[in-house]
Amino acid sequence: MAGSVFGTIFKISTWGESHGKGIGVVVDGCPAGLALCEDDIQVYLNRRKPGQSKFSTPRKEDDAVEILSGVFEGKTTGTPISMVVYNKTQRSGDYGEIARCYRPGHADYTFDEKYGFRDYRGGGRSSGRETIARVAAGAIAAKLLYQMGIEVYAYTESIGDVKIDAARFDDKEARDTNPLNMPDATAAEEAAKLVAEQMANYDSVGGVIACSVTGLPTGIGEPVFEKLDANLSKAIFSIGAVKGVEIGDGFSAATAFGSANNDAFAMKNGKVTKLTNHAGGILGGISDGSDLFLRAAIKPTPSIFSEQQTVSREHEDMMLQIKGRHDPIIVPRAVVVVEAMTAIVLLDMLLVGMSARADRVIEFYTKK
Amino acid sequence: MAGSVFGTIFKISTWGESHGKGIGVVVDGCPAGLALCEDDIQVYLNRRKPGQSKFSTPRKEDDAVEILSGVFEGKTTGTPISMVVYNKTQRSGDYGEIARCYRPGHADYTFDEKYGFRDYRGGGRSSGRETIARVAAGAIAAKLLYQMGIEVYAYTESIGDVKIDAARFDDKEARDTNPLNMPDATAAEEAAKLVAEQMANYDSVGGVIACSVTGLPTGIGEPVFEKLDANLSKAIFSIGAVKGVEIGDGFSAATAFGSANNDAFAMKNGKVTKLTNHAGGILGGISDGSDLFLRAAIKPTPSIFSEQQTVSREHEDMMLQIKGRHDPIIVPRAVVVVEAMTAIVLLDMLLVGMSARADRVIEFYTKK
Amino acid sequence: MAGSVFGTIFKISTWGESHGKGIGVVVDGCPAGLALCEDDIQVYLNRRKPGQSKFSTPRKEDDAVEILSGVFEGKTTGTPISMVVYNKTQRSGDYGEIARCYRPGHADYTFDEKYGFRDYRGGGRSSGRETIARVAAGAIAAKLLYQMGIEVYAYTESIGDVKIDAARFDDKEARDTNPLNMPDATAAEEAAKLVAEQMANYDSVGGVIACSVTGLPTGIGEPVFEKLDANLSKAIFSIGAVKGVEIGDGFSAATAFGSANNDAFAMKNGKVTKLTNHAGGILGGISDGSDLFLRAAIKPTPSIFSEQQTVSREHEDMMLQIKGRHDPIIVPRAVVVVEAMTAIVLLDMLLVGMSARADRVIEFYTKK
Amino acid sequence: MAGSVFGTIFKISTWGESHGKGIGVVVDGCPAGLALCEDDIQVYLNRRKPGQSKFSTPRKEDDAVEILSGVFEGKTTGTPISMVVYNKTQRSGDYGEIARCYRPGHADYTFDEKYGFRDYRGGGRSSGRETIARVAAGAIAAKLLYQMGIEVYAYTESIGDVKIDAARFDDKEARDTNPLNMPDATAAEEAAKLVAEQMANYDSVGGVIACSVTGLPTGIGEPVFEKLDANLSKAIFSIGAVKGVEIGDGFSAATAFGSANNDAFAMKNGKVTKLTNHAGGILGGISDGSDLFLRAAIKPTPSIFSEQQTVSREHEDMMLQIKGRHDPIIVPRAVVVVEAMTAIVLLDMLLVGMSARADRVIEFYTKK
Repeated sequence: MAGSVFGTIFKISTWGESHGKGIGVVVDGCPAGLALCEDDIQVYLNRRKPGQSKFSTPRKEDDAVEILSGVFEGKTTGTPISMVVYNKTQRSGDYGEIARCYRPGHADYTFDEKYGFRDYRGGGRSSGRETIARVAAGAIAAKLLYQMGIEVYAYTESIGDVKIDAARFDDKEARDTNPLNMPDATAAEEAAKLVAEQMANYDSVGGVIACSVTGLPTGIGEPVFEKLDANLSKAIFSIGAVKGVEIGDGFSAATAFGSANNDAFAMKNGKVTKLTNHAGGILGGISDGSDLFLRAAIKPTPSIFSEQQTVSREHEDMMLQIKGRHDPIIVPRAVVVVEAMTAIVLLDMLLVGMSARADRVIEFYTKK
Repeated sequence: MAGSVFGTIFKISTWGESHGKGIGVVVDGCPAGLALCEDDIQVYLNRRKPGQSKFSTPRKEDDAVEILSGVFEGKTTGTPISMVVYNKTQRSGDYGEIARCYRPGHADYTFDEKYGFRDYRGGGRSSGRETIARVAAGAIAAKLLYQMGIEVYAYTESIGDVKIDAARFDDKEARDTNPLNMPDATAAEEAAKLVAEQMANYDSVGGVIACSVTGLPTGIGEPVFEKLDANLSKAIFSIGAVKGVEIGDGFSAATAFGSANNDAFAMKNGKVTKLTNHAGGILGGISDGSDLFLRAAIKPTPSIFSEQQTVSREHEDMMLQIKGRHDPIIVPRAVVVVEAMTAIVLLDMLLVGMSARADRVIEFYTKK
Repeated sequence: MAGSVFGTIFKISTWGESHGKGIGVVVDGCPAGLALCEDDIQVYLNRRKPGQSKFSTPRKEDDAVEILSGVFEGKTTGTPISMVVYNKTQRSGDYGEIARCYRPGHADYTFDEKYGFRDYRGGGRSSGRETIARVAAGAIAAKLLYQMGIEVYAYTESIGDVKIDAARFDDKEARDTNPLNMPDATAAEEAAKLVAEQMANYDSVGGVIACSVTGLPTGIGEPVFEKLDANLSKAIFSIGAVKGVEIGDGFSAATAFGSANNDAFAMKNGKVTKLTNHAGGILGGISDGSDLFLRAAIKPTPSIFSEQQTVSREHEDMMLQIKGRHDPIIVPRAVVVVEAMTAIVLLDMLLVGMSARADRVIEFYTKK
Repeated sequence: MAGSVFGTIFKISTWGESHGKGIGVVVDGCPAGLALCEDDIQVYLNRRKPGQSKFSTPRKEDDAVEILSGVFEGKTTGTPISMVVYNKTQRSGDYGEIARCYRPGHADYTFDEKYGFRDYRGGGRSSGRETIARVAAGAIAAKLLYQMGIEVYAYTESIGDVKIDAARFDDKEARDTNPLNMPDATAAEEAAKLVAEQMANYDSVGGVIACSVTGLPTGIGEPVFEKLDANLSKAIFSIGAVKGVEIGDGFSAATAFGSANNDAFAMKNGKVTKLTNHAGGILGGISDGSDLFLRAAIKPTPSIFSEQQTVSREHEDMMLQIKGRHDPIIVPRAVVVVEAMTAIVLLDMLLVGMSARADRVIEFYTKK
């Protein structure tokens, strides 16, 4: 099956391996006439770039994006937008044990089982570098959403057991003032200590990424299988290392009673509003006009430097000592990926949602 | 967009409203030659039937399924299998306030916003009765999976704050000995008390459903966007009232360290195995041969009998007192729905996964 | 693969066999608020009903459609519209040789090869009755198109070597005044003679169906693979017995020179128009504002009463003498099917086409 | 809608404009383990290269393909294969009238109507260079098909009114001995004269391409909408300049009688065979084991050098004199494109067809 294609109208096809020639994406179905240049993409890519703090791999990658098609005279043409980031750090090199055995927590074993062999260089297709393509496509979606007054904002909510304090969550910009992307300086400091400790232990740390969306119109999302939350959860779960997704109160809703979990409706400035937002902005799979809120659980980086038990491709028990350069935590770099996937889903569902009402369809085609 | 169609090869199209003529599903892409009769479906439907305990609505619905096509001489023909459950309990009746206002926690408001109006009879398309179609289709998928040695088993893990004790989890059959579908008699008793209390309070309760899959081959699931966990989470999140999904350790993985969360590989009876299963049977989106494990958070039933604040269709503030017949908890009845959606995703991905290797494709078509 | 599902946003799933319980279709993605009742569908179904002339099988089928979902208070709700036509003429009966051998020109052999067995009763899924579902769905599409000023009109252009004379093509109604659906009374008479002759010879006749569309906006259809003509040709070729499709001049364009085949542009009443329409209303896969024009070649009915050479399921040579009731020509009854499939494609591409321009998308969501 | 993505399992996404940075394709869903290198692709691309005879534009393009991903150690990995042909002949240059007006027979007008503007450089996305991506993807499909014993062979059947003589159709290689790709030297000579004449007249010529497939297993193709012929016709019609498609006898079947058009079955060397092949190898949309045969009508190149009437973007009547370099006929260069699209459809339907029978699915997953 074609696993690297996503979306219905705003449809993206990604490609590339960690140590291959590059990573790229073809964005098909992007509406025409959107002003777009490489800088619009680069600012997003820069947010996931490694080597920006002691908590991410020291690899220097400039990850410069190039637009190869679909933009003319500074605007999208409505035809496929092909983007590529060429890999600067290809190392033929000796991949040693990585090639010969299965790293615990990685996809080495499952790729071999599925395909009979794998591109073992730096994880090949299952490398975190694959997310470059998601972020590049998401930057385009986010730009168009922004012009509709819709803003997607993700951040690190917790690292290990260090959680941000809502009371200290001053402003969105605070997120970008620390390497862990936590919009709470105090928590960020504590988290930094935790990560540093585990680095020293040759260990790694996970965390939770939260994402909120403001300005989303009501009525977005389809009933039954194409619910907005269903598509968002698929998009978020498709990001490597995600082990859980929550919408609104998520799992804590399971322990609440109906009287507490229901969000009462009330008129406010002539508009229907909800007095609370336990639902996270979605009712019956369709946006309800409140802010959308979701959470993603990110497992600790499986690449750790302490010795681990595993088996070889030849199916012999062995001990593995991973070498090389690896992030002790991927949560901060995944923040922009969650933002990108959320933007891609929202734009796609906004585009498919234009045909929900007959009268609006008729008006659309007859007024012109 | 077509929100009621799901799947790539094993593709289902569901239809029907709570108080319409019936609920149905067309299953297209089911392999030919599978022995199938209405009883195969009915045993699954009976598990979600209401009126089986004091904890579900006293509505008497026999929900008898009829197969209209796609089966000949007791076997599936490979062409669409159309199934219908006619609604016996259609009540033209007066829907009173339900028709005129928005029930908190329900999709009344979002349907009106999306479509301009809605079928308000019993929730229309957003009613829990919609899941009849999922269960009917899932029963077919489960039967074919079973013939491949794959078993999907879901159960109630917790209700409110009452959780089953793994130590008391004796056998799978235990699930079916109590109305809450908890495979732990002691927890089931406690939970029954809790639900009874909240019924008396005119309130409702939520819970968590767990689902495990045994016998799944390795290599199922596709890289990047069509990961097995991504598709499972979409399927589960598409069930009304689900607010969270976890694979394996889920959110607790976010607070674990890599050394503890990684599952070491070891040879066992000549097979590659994992010494632990924090991953829940999926690595890089592809099944790893361990049991698959997922969890779904179910919110408390939004239909409660205590008075609630809301607004009318005419956008006036008002108080609502829901009447009629409603479950104080939907978790137990949703267990089989989680099982059904899991089976549908697994079968679909098994079918699309047949083409993963060139040598197997060539052998498939040349050996015949 | 799921072969019975068609469309992207206006998505239909059909089911049913010739002698099963019924034939049906689920229409998902139909915009909400369209006034719809069973009569809207029935008038289309009546046009394909058999037994209306000596040129169609004397089977009496009232083919009465029932809407099971998706319509409330006389309007479409935006959720799936399920429609069924129950088979009145089920005959358990003895299917004799039809069950035991392969009828030349039919799908008996290929179904057995694909699925291992087949529902042989009246052709099962490959029966012409399958088109009932297409026509029912097409009636809905045509109604919505009509409200946008778009009219789809198909007719019999030729039967055997008897072709209508454009000069005598007076008005569209003329089509419905003769059993062959030819809008040219003289040709219809000639054709009637031809068909009568071949009936007497125990033989059958084919023909060509033409279809024109007026009022289609410019800009409908997508570049490259989703060209309007590409989707139309797939839809028409999916109708049993179709062996060729032409857009505009079709095959005669292959023998024309560029100077003659190009359609010059000119301003007319302030609008860009084409002075000729060799292209048939489509340039580069996108509608150009001229009338759309296509043709479908229909092979002669394979069911003939003269003795034919064939093989049995047990792979023995044998002679076959088909009994029962069969049309000596299916062209007239296929006219409404071509109209239906054309309407379905046009509506679907109109709906997906709403998102072509960023400014219109932004206006759509911000003006509300 | 995403118009540049095609296929269900073997899914291709194409991108690029005539005078942009390049033309490319991402092939997702290609089975793993297929030996593949750039030469495998280049031999196909060389067949569509211009500048190879006086009948194609003198533009010198080496159209060298580069594989950017999805191949490791000389074999496909099962992940996306990204291929690109960089445009060597980018000319910023002055596009003069092409930019300011609508060329008759081209997509200039319809692109402007759909998207509000267009990349006018050399036709942008609607240029014939777009087919480079189809051929590159088709080369991969053809290689895998070949390993299953399936061969796709297309050729020029006629140019203008010059048709090859079946009697003179000696061998397949004959096609490649003349610039018009006609497997009949005599006809090729005649056709060459015709094209030369029309070049002198500043005019252009069309023709018909035929394509046959040998070695296709029975049972390929799905009932109803996903018929093999339906998908083939969509694929062929999606090629620019195609105005008609026929399967088997095509339009001549419409004038035949059933007794002549039916293909009788007979046993031959223990296999079910057809004594004739009017059906072109497809019955009921499913391959019947005979050779598959289809035809495509190609219109004359719309770019002619004689003066033509048209309108400007500012909607003023004007006369246009096209300059530059254009083929007087595109038929010969389109032959490999027809072959490529046919191969893509066949492989995709072979892959989706693996799941047709339950017993084979079970065997596939349990024997391993």
